[in-house]
Amino acid sequence: MVRKKSRQDCSKGEMNLMKKIKIGIVGYGNLGKGVELAVRKQPDMELVGIFTRRDPKTLIPQYSDTMVFSMDEMVHYKDMIHVMILCGGSAKDLPKQSPTLVKMFNIVDSFDTHKEIPNHYQQVNEAAKQAGTVGIISVGWDPGLFSLMRMLGDAILPQGHTYTFWGRGVSQGHSDAIRKIKGVKGAVQYTIPSSEALEQVRRGEEPNLTTREKHRRECYVVPQEGADLETIRQEIITMPNYFADYDTQVYFISEEELQRNHSAMPHGGRVIHSAKTGRNEQNHQKIEFGLTLDSNPEFTSSVLVAYARAAYALQKEGYTGAKTVLDIPPRHLSWKSQEELQKEVL
Amino acid sequence: MVRKKSRQDCSKGEMNLMKKIKIGIVGYGNLGKGVELAVRKQPDMELVGIFTRRDPKTLIPQYSDTMVFSMDEMVHYKDMIHVMILCGGSAKDLPKQSPTLVKMFNIVDSFDTHKEIPNHYQQVNEAAKQAGTVGIISVGWDPGLFSLMRMLGDAILPQGHTYTFWGRGVSQGHSDAIRKIKGVKGAVQYTIPSSEALEQVRRGEEPNLTTREKHRRECYVVPQEGADLETIRQEIITMPNYFADYDTQVYFISEEELQRNHSAMPHGGRVIHSAKTGRNEQNHQKIEFGLTLDSNPEFTSSVLVAYARAAYALQKEGYTGAKTVLDIPPRHLSWKSQEELQKEVL
Repeated sequence: MVRKKSRQDCSKGEMNLMKKIKIGIVGYGNLGKGVELAVRKQPDMELVGIFTRRDPKTLIPQYSDTMVFSMDEMVHYKDMIHVMILCGGSAKDLPKQSPTLVKMFNIVDSFDTHKEIPNHYQQVNEAAKQAGTVGIISVGWDPGLFSLMRMLGDAILPQGHTYTFWGRGVSQGHSDAIRKIKGVKGAVQYTIPSSEALEQVRRGEEPNLTTREKHRRECYVVPQEGADLETIRQEIITMPNYFADYDTQVYFISEEELQRNHSAMPHGGRVIHSAKTGRNEQNHQKIEFGLTLDSNPEFTSSVLVAYARAAYALQKEGYTGAKTVLDIPPRHLSWKSQEELQKEVL
Repeated sequence: MVRKKSRQDCSKGEMNLMKKIKIGIVGYGNLGKGVELAVRKQPDMELVGIFTRRDPKTLIPQYSDTMVFSMDEMVHYKDMIHVMILCGGSAKDLPKQSPTLVKMFNIVDSFDTHKEIPNHYQQVNEAAKQAGTVGIISVGWDPGLFSLMRMLGDAILPQGHTYTFWGRGVSQGHSDAIRKIKGVKGAVQYTIPSSEALEQVRRGEEPNLTTREKHRRECYVVPQEGADLETIRQEIITMPNYFADYDTQVYFISEEELQRNHSAMPHGGRVIHSAKTGRNEQNHQKIEFGLTLDSNPEFTSSVLVAYARAAYALQKEGYTGAKTVLDIPPRHLSWKSQEELQKEVL
């Protein structure tokens, strides 16, 4: 006799599949598109729609037939969406959007203006506490997974040193800075970790590294017709904050070459914690966490989506307020039950 | 005027230093010695003593002048120790000790008999719930940090595959198995990941790998005088569970060489999660977490000590019962305050 599964027979993981987590996307740039793709890979989630400031009729979702709504209509979807994933920028969008939207929804954002994080946390925390929602901020890989790894290394081996290397990858901020220079038509900038510094750290030398010693920068620049290349080059390599402290190489290329060879958005990096243990500090202990990403936005959005699950789980457990990756019991990121996780991954 | 810092002026990190977490060690083998060393590196902890089944007078601590007590006296230290770190073995010690001691103390153990974890969890959970204590089980790097990484990869990119490689490192269990063979005086076994399999995984091929394809085993064996080497070799390479499924090399060496070249306890390994994203699954995304350890027991014990901090923090927050690394908000591993962590590592 084939017996139909009753609710009692189901594992929590299976139960999760029955009642899917309803996700909304706010903002449809690279990150929003990444979330649209990532939600489809999660067995316990479904996408309700994309919210945009544009005229919804002009926005055509690229990877699904999900609905598109105006951000002004958001309030009507209060009870139909479990978590809003905010895909705007940290400079202008998130400082306003996160504290506002968390009054209606659980949210996840990727706020990454480092020195503003404590303030952003407080803004979101107050609004979320009042509303009874959860807002997970500064999610992604840095801040995000890399933050977790830095904390882990320091907590386990406080006598050691933690190093973060970024790249090889495209830095959007640095590319934008070059594009603003007079005479520049297009540009892509790669951040590249120094292989020498990396090897020193891996060998356990625990060096003190200057900014210049850790990374170098490569710029691929399309000049406007008639522009003076040497002037552009000088303006790039002396630009304070962005390039002046680094060894920077500038390559002038054609627009066609930029399109062909530099339109992908790879990135990655590694957090290395290196320490000595033993009576005479004779034992080198090394923890290394590395990411190698063909698509930075598609990976970042996959992280956001996993944390959306945690936002929903935490609210169901009665928690409210702002959270960061450091506050969240890891199992809330998984759709599997505690029992399944104990069997399968522990 | 120099103003003395009042309690109100102190950060939580500084406060933690004022009232140190009191640690007890149960069992004084390699792991216990590692805990003795690791506690000294933690700014907010102090070691109260070592508890042993031996006659306490015969045990001389190697790295401190801490006190040594008989395990029978434990009950008298109920209020003087915040967390007991259990350093016994998973086969015989922990299945009894963890559920018993958690009735009196918060505990951390490194229980690693994989298929017994759910049962062990239940035993500890019941006892801890009744006693109002916290018992964190199966802590270390595998199970432990590697479990965290396996879960993380699967939660973020469920479409991908997770691979765990161990080594190069000494497997205590496999070394012991060889030592039990007739004619063997001493032995050390190294588990070595296949560099070919590792490269395949790193390239994003997401292969299906058999046991034999993932690791090979190297055995350094000291034979007794007159023993038949070929008999020993055959007995090793055909041993079910331990060696039969692997490519195994056996090297016969002198006792002196074993002492000189094979008395360290290096280990390590890596968890790699590999997945594709994008409309056409064209983007390879790779997460790699690797450990390279000169001393396996000294690293494992450093992990246990960080989780001892979490056990204490959770109990103070009102939690009770058994926990695993998957259940614990990461910031509880750190002695730094939430504010400091937001500034320094996020």
